[in-house]
Amino acid sequence: MNGYLKPVELGKASRLIHHGPTVLVSAHHQGVDDVMAVGWACALDFAPPKVTVVLDKVARTRELVEGSAIFVVQVPTVAQLQLVDAVGTSTLFNDPDKLLKSDVHLFHQDGFGHLPFVTGCSAWLACKLIPEPHNQENYDLFIGEIVGAWADTRVFREGHWHFQDADPAWRSLHYIAGGHYYATGDSFFAATVES
Amino acid sequence: MNGYLKPVELGKASRLIHHGPTVLVSAHHQGVDDVMAVGWACALDFAPPKVTVVLDKVARTRELVEGSAIFVVQVPTVAQLQLVDAVGTSTLFNDPDKLLKSDVHLFHQDGFGHLPFVTGCSAWLACKLIPEPHNQENYDLFIGEIVGAWADTRVFREGHWHFQDADPAWRSLHYIAGGHYYATGDSFFAATVES
Repeated sequence: MNGYLKPVELGKASRLIHHGPTVLVSAHHQGVDDVMAVGWACALDFAPPKVTVVLDKVARTRELVEGSAIFVVQVPTVAQLQLVDAVGTSTLFNDPDKLLKSDVHLFHQDGFGHLPFVTGCSAWLACKLIPEPHNQENYDLFIGEIVGAWADTRVFREGHWHFQDADPAWRSLHYIAGGHYYATGDSFFAATVES
Repeated sequence: MNGYLKPVELGKASRLIHHGPTVLVSAHHQGVDDVMAVGWACALDFAPPKVTVVLDKVARTRELVEGSAIFVVQVPTVAQLQLVDAVGTSTLFNDPDKLLKSDVHLFHQDGFGHLPFVTGCSAWLACKLIPEPHNQENYDLFIGEIVGAWADTRVFREGHWHFQDADPAWRSLHYIAGGHYYATGDSFFAATVES
């Protein structure tokens, strides 16, 4: 945790993932931490704010989410490209040193117990699982209610992303396939249209 | 329709939205076409390929999807910024001339009847609704199976996006809030990590 990390009001929390970044999902259960890369994550509602994440059955993180019913969705940066790819291509089931080898460092937030947050990201959403067994079993689709949100003020402040003013290393990653990612790019504003 | 528009194999169709772009959702039912901007759209599976889209009850397009059980998810471009913002901020319920005023032009694909596709996008996914009334009513969440996929070869070909080689006007849009969008940005490849 660092002095740049500030809470984001829950009414604006979904903006942290509106741009469709690849995220890291982390969870803790019975003494085990895990972190995975998730390309399929999306906002679902504003009030209360909710998210969807697709968690494959091959991921240990999924077991931890099912066991603890709480998880973190966090937005990694271009500076974390190798970390993201590493946690997206290895599994704790096969490699107990996955997080160490992937250079993942974790921190905790007051009031959230052992819930693991990944150091160096630009934004974090603490999400309480809304159990939907049909979706989880049939589609690997998990729904979470956002119960806490924080961002690094060097790139998100006063309810807005500031990628255009920040070091490019702060930009988000958007995964395509096979180790190929795009970063978040230029900023555009639509002109107000009078109808 | 133009000569650059080519089919994409269904096994790679979800790559068309992996980068988390804002999409346009279009549908037709009983003589009515509508198109809406959707910030909350996401891939859900590879085989068969599926997507999720969040369709608010205020959108006429949602009624058309419910009525016809088929819809198009298409990826608009920076060149279409004003069109995207226009169809995202007006509704056919209040303005029968919405599509005309938004400068939306539609085309059709062989084998898909009246299903409306928006001209000028970079990619198109024809999606058959998988009815999930609980998700639709409680979360405005709709699941579709991708049954047809096409892309403009000037920016997506041989299973890969080529934003880095194309005119920047072809980049996708990533909506944040209040008329503010980011374009898809620079391309990065993660180094292969030996564990």
